[in-house]
Amino acid sequence: MLGAIEAGGTKFVCAVGNEDGTIIERIKIDTLTPEQTMPEVIHFFKKYDVKSLGIGSFGPVDIDKNSPTYGNITSTPKPGWTNYPFLKTMQEALQIPIEFNTDVNVAALGEMLKGAAQGLDSCLYITVGTGVGAGAVVQGNLLQGLSHPEMGHVLVKRHPDDTFEGSCPYHKDCLEGMAAGPAIEKRWGQKGHELQDKQEVWEIEAYYLAQALMQYILTISPKKIIMGGGVMKQAQIFPLVRKQVQELLNGYVPLPQITEHIEVYIVPPSLGDDAGITGALMLAKRALETRKATN
Amino acid sequence: MLGAIEAGGTKFVCAVGNEDGTIIERIKIDTLTPEQTMPEVIHFFKKYDVKSLGIGSFGPVDIDKNSPTYGNITSTPKPGWTNYPFLKTMQEALQIPIEFNTDVNVAALGEMLKGAAQGLDSCLYITVGTGVGAGAVVQGNLLQGLSHPEMGHVLVKRHPDDTFEGSCPYHKDCLEGMAAGPAIEKRWGQKGHELQDKQEVWEIEAYYLAQALMQYILTISPKKIIMGGGVMKQAQIFPLVRKQVQELLNGYVPLPQITEHIEVYIVPPSLGDDAGITGALMLAKRALETRKATN
Repeated sequence: MLGAIEAGGTKFVCAVGNEDGTIIERIKIDTLTPEQTMPEVIHFFKKYDVKSLGIGSFGPVDIDKNSPTYGNITSTPKPGWTNYPFLKTMQEALQIPIEFNTDVNVAALGEMLKGAAQGLDSCLYITVGTGVGAGAVVQGNLLQGLSHPEMGHVLVKRHPDDTFEGSCPYHKDCLEGMAAGPAIEKRWGQKGHELQDKQEVWEIEAYYLAQALMQYILTISPKKIIMGGGVMKQAQIFPLVRKQVQELLNGYVPLPQITEHIEVYIVPPSLGDDAGITGALMLAKRALETRKATN
Repeated sequence: MLGAIEAGGTKFVCAVGNEDGTIIERIKIDTLTPEQTMPEVIHFFKKYDVKSLGIGSFGPVDIDKNSPTYGNITSTPKPGWTNYPFLKTMQEALQIPIEFNTDVNVAALGEMLKGAAQGLDSCLYITVGTGVGAGAVVQGNLLQGLSHPEMGHVLVKRHPDDTFEGSCPYHKDCLEGMAAGPAIEKRWGQKGHELQDKQEVWEIEAYYLAQALMQYILTISPKKIIMGGGVMKQAQIFPLVRKQVQELLNGYVPLPQITEHIEVYIVPPSLGDDAGITGALMLAKRALETRKATN
């Protein structure tokens, strides 16, 4: 049996399951302080004979295996979690192989192996909710460089009809500052799900998301783009985003996936809200394979 | 002995050299039509006992090894080169292992193995000249997805003092449309090297380049950024770009490479104008290793 953690800012999802991605048992635990949350997390996994664990964590995190602080949550403002040794805590408690990455990289892995991007070696997963985050698998690997991607903060051009100043504390009007759930609420005075019928809300939202997707397409050229998160439950955004991506690229990347079949190129997650936890389970499988390869 | 081609829109550089990156002999051949250029290219390599060849080509090109048109130049407006089977032509002529990729991906490889990014497994190479192009090595691999990157066309915000409409035929005021050599000339009525002392020219240039670098940092998090090409020979741009990248990120990616040591993070090519041809030689080495691994 394999273990999986999707560690979010408001809750942890912990699950056990099989190598084929089937989830057998799961629980949700509130993200309070580490002292309150982690004993419950460890207690859950100790009930099972778990061979390896995959963790997809909220960030920023250190995912550099050569770093002394590998597996730590780093500069989060969340009380108690700054510089918290997440991976080390789990390793000491469970003594099994563990792989650790960002929540969104892991969700991309889940969608690639068990969801909308099956059969491909590359996809990008973006979540648009309380914040905006994106991860990717590139040539089979979870995307990583100096650090993990922070694609939620790419710059976007302001919509000509939009006077909202932006809500990102670092960049004001970056993608997250203009397109995350709280930005929608501040701009229009109502939450996204209350604005469902207001065409102008979603035109502006799609304008920003399409720009970000254009940047990602031109930079990493993902084989599929999966858009999840609370805001993307407004399914009326998808056709608007697809149309604006085509208009922005203007035929510059003349691939049929973009020019002809964009409705299967930019898609919602097949796994719904389970992209992250399924990806974490697949990461646990990789942890086991890595250990076997090293032995 | 290994062979290398850096195929540009105005000239081909062909070279033979050693596995350590030393170039023994090289020639330049004008890029006319394939019928005029390619026999000269082939003639050069037939003089040597070349064991494998690496090609870095102007694009767009098909770099998908599973595609029937792998190794073709695709939708270029350059007379005679549209859908030209570059790789196939060289394979038939030389009958040796050949690796094929974009000019900028290959330049990134050269800088990583023999230049400014030695010892790392990741870097981004951007050239700012007649056009703007960028390539990258990510986790040791030349970056590739649905297609190769087209990072020269990322969107940028307009500088408040800039009324130039932009010169990109596809996107008007994308990065290439605002920051390539021809854009500088159209905006100011003089070529870049004639404008060396005009501070406002380089402030605006750096404004656009820094935005693009921010997008790349947030998306692929390269371990080093190397800026080459004719425009970057104006060395006074480097400090301006570095400063603006720091200001744009505003501490959001709190890594010492960016916040403290940016002068060794964003750098000119160590190999100067030889990044591409050296990278092509290193690609020839990879072609040989791939063949050995398969046999």
